[in-house]
Amino acid sequence: MSTRKPQILNGFRDYLPEQMRLRQRVIAIFRNVFEAHGFEPLDTPTIEYLEVLTGKAGENEKLMYQFKDHGGRDVGLRYDLTVPLARYMAMHQSDIVLPFKRYHIAPVWRAERPQRGRGREFWQCDADIVGSPSMLADAEAISVLSEALDGVGLSEATVLINHRKLLESLALLAGVQAERASGVFRAIDKLAKVGPDGVLKELEAAGINHDAGHRILELVTQSGEPKELLDEAERRLVGVPGADEAVQQLRELLTFLRALGVSESAYRIDLSLARGIDYYTGPVYEAVVQEQNIGSVAGAGRYDDLVGTFLGRPVPATGMSLGFERIIEVVRELDLLSVDAAVAQVFVVALPQTLEDAGHIATELRHHEIRVDQSVLINRGLGDQLKHADRRGIPIAVIPGKAEVSRGNVALKDLKSGEQREVSIPLLLEEIHRMLAALSDCSISAEE
Amino acid sequence: MSTRKPQILNGFRDYLPEQMRLRQRVIAIFRNVFEAHGFEPLDTPTIEYLEVLTGKAGENEKLMYQFKDHGGRDVGLRYDLTVPLARYMAMHQSDIVLPFKRYHIAPVWRAERPQRGRGREFWQCDADIVGSPSMLADAEAISVLSEALDGVGLSEATVLINHRKLLESLALLAGVQAERASGVFRAIDKLAKVGPDGVLKELEAAGINHDAGHRILELVTQSGEPKELLDEAERRLVGVPGADEAVQQLRELLTFLRALGVSESAYRIDLSLARGIDYYTGPVYEAVVQEQNIGSVAGAGRYDDLVGTFLGRPVPATGMSLGFERIIEVVRELDLLSVDAAVAQVFVVALPQTLEDAGHIATELRHHEIRVDQSVLINRGLGDQLKHADRRGIPIAVIPGKAEVSRGNVALKDLKSGEQREVSIPLLLEEIHRMLAALSDCSISAEE
Repeated sequence: MSTRKPQILNGFRDYLPEQMRLRQRVIAIFRNVFEAHGFEPLDTPTIEYLEVLTGKAGENEKLMYQFKDHGGRDVGLRYDLTVPLARYMAMHQSDIVLPFKRYHIAPVWRAERPQRGRGREFWQCDADIVGSPSMLADAEAISVLSEALDGVGLSEATVLINHRKLLESLALLAGVQAERASGVFRAIDKLAKVGPDGVLKELEAAGINHDAGHRILELVTQSGEPKELLDEAERRLVGVPGADEAVQQLRELLTFLRALGVSESAYRIDLSLARGIDYYTGPVYEAVVQEQNIGSVAGAGRYDDLVGTFLGRPVPATGMSLGFERIIEVVRELDLLSVDAAVAQVFVVALPQTLEDAGHIATELRHHEIRVDQSVLINRGLGDQLKHADRRGIPIAVIPGKAEVSRGNVALKDLKSGEQREVSIPLLLEEIHRMLAALSDCSISAEE
Repeated sequence: MSTRKPQILNGFRDYLPEQMRLRQRVIAIFRNVFEAHGFEPLDTPTIEYLEVLTGKAGENEKLMYQFKDHGGRDVGLRYDLTVPLARYMAMHQSDIVLPFKRYHIAPVWRAERPQRGRGREFWQCDADIVGSPSMLADAEAISVLSEALDGVGLSEATVLINHRKLLESLALLAGVQAERASGVFRAIDKLAKVGPDGVLKELEAAGINHDAGHRILELVTQSGEPKELLDEAERRLVGVPGADEAVQQLRELLTFLRALGVSESAYRIDLSLARGIDYYTGPVYEAVVQEQNIGSVAGAGRYDDLVGTFLGRPVPATGMSLGFERIIEVVRELDLLSVDAAVAQVFVVALPQTLEDAGHIATELRHHEIRVDQSVLINRGLGDQLKHADRRGIPIAVIPGKAEVSRGNVALKDLKSGEQREVSIPLLLEEIHRMLAALSDCSISAEE
């Protein structure tokens, strides 16, 4: 028999059953939140014309997996879910009622140097509202974001809020034109990493004089209640183009957040937030978890230019992207969601003389929503079969011994404790429910 | 504003929300069946080393999407879920308890000429049992297959059963060595397409004389009860190597199918079934729906050689693959599963003076599992907002008019009938439940 070498590409990974169950659970939670808010699911192809994918990518473009297909066309694997959304909006205009709320949960590919928690294939989890310029759409996006993080136990997450035009007006204040403000954004973005002095150096390197740098830094590092911060920004940036609009939009956003019932502890204004600012056109958001240095778990913001690139006219859009892989990591580290060791809750032993009874029992239990593994180890002894079930982490075994079955009973075994009792078949479902409830109580108290 | 051309590659497609809801529903049904039988979920990378993917592919190899990655490695997109399973088994040996039951629902890619219902990107839906040579594992696979098709309303599907070694012994009977029997398989496989005379011609073209061809054709085209067919095959193929083993295995399989409670109307022996026979090593199955020329909806069989290609030793395996894209098509054509026009069940109108009340109502309804679209059209009039909800297919609107709210009420509008009533806020949930129940009754009676 010839042997091929089993290997997997660096930056790619298999998801083992237990990992898959956690991923499926988190996806189900996010889907539920998105759908509870009326967001519609959609999906787009993995492979697109390269021409469709390029443009927004910028820096990321060289990280795109690209090749010629069998027809000699230049194609690539999607590297995010936003460009496909823009292409989708343009191609399905006549089917779409605006504002359009969609979510998309799917893998994307980037040939980055693999890092902890970030491979070359990773899932994104996006929800966007296209076609509404209203800050109410932004408030809705933040509300969904906050609820989704809550749903997986990350209730400590805070949504930081800033506005691109506030950052631009800061740059203007420092004498830098909006078009060339990206140096300022990049410097500010490094605050958490390099500290205030580091930012000052970065600003100087970007050609901003010491005094202006100081003023910018002082303003972006202020903390306080959202209202106070906006009042202060308005006062200091009076007359600077863009500042007034940004402050008014953020005030409106705060009003809408309150109206939608988003808890005031769930967000704050952070004028130093400059992540992904090149891409966003209005308010920007980032959800961070302060505790245990977890950091960013989701990003969001308004991007009124992108969707229109295929339509030739601006289309307002706002949305958010949950950092799915990072969230999975955090949920696992902090043990926020429990998953069973095995899919199957009950293992039904296969014995030649009672196989038909075993089949009936398994079918009946499944009709009552019990997940049953019907043993295929019919040529192996009882001990081997029970050992197999235990090694797989299945908690309960049903043993249809010939003597028991002749009495209308089966043996029911708790594979954790080893305890075994004879149970009448009509009472089996009830007994199993009782055992499963006891098991889930245990796992709850173990978590506490 | 520069415009990029929005286009999609031939053989690829977007899934619009309504299509996605149907796909998600079918996937949920299949997942439930797989998990009810204790199959574990797993996932593997989209991109694999080309060397890993090649081998089994054979004819398909030239259809594989392949390219050099950024590190100059030869890589390809997976074209099925079985080769990745084999690679997975070899790499995770120490984590896996055999027999291993897994399911995998994911897209695969083949650069085939796109046909109706089959693109270049399509989803597969596989469940396999690795590590058991027992026909009980095959019976379990057929049982799962039958239940999965039942779950989506294809209860008329019949699982056709044959055995590779029976076909090989037929070839031997006709004087063709097993190693060169593929010409015989290919001829028989064309029975449905070219008819008996066509098969005879194909057999002659494969170098089989007229008499032998007739004998083969006569045997494979017999119909009858499984037991009769196997008795007849045994009688005619007495002494032909392999025939006895095949007949015994199929008899065992039939016994196990009965024991597992699979309805006898759900399967039959069909000695002309030769689909994918190169790849299978024992029993082979195919689920077909006779009515309305639907044809094949799933394939299955035992393949004891493939998984071992990475391990250097044979590993028994059996499993099945649901023809997901074909099933979706059939479910849609025959209207077997209903999906709502919109995710959202209730649209809450946004009016400036009662936005906070609207927010409370939406949140409260969501807490009771109602999917609520909170309008973001706050700058538009009531009529526009209701028109928007109706165009999206949302059936119910809540209108928190200022006057109504001041009385502790809202207006509740049925967007289909246009009927509108004033309802007290504490009774709103109950009223909405009543309206939704009436709607789903309508859609049920419409289906009947």
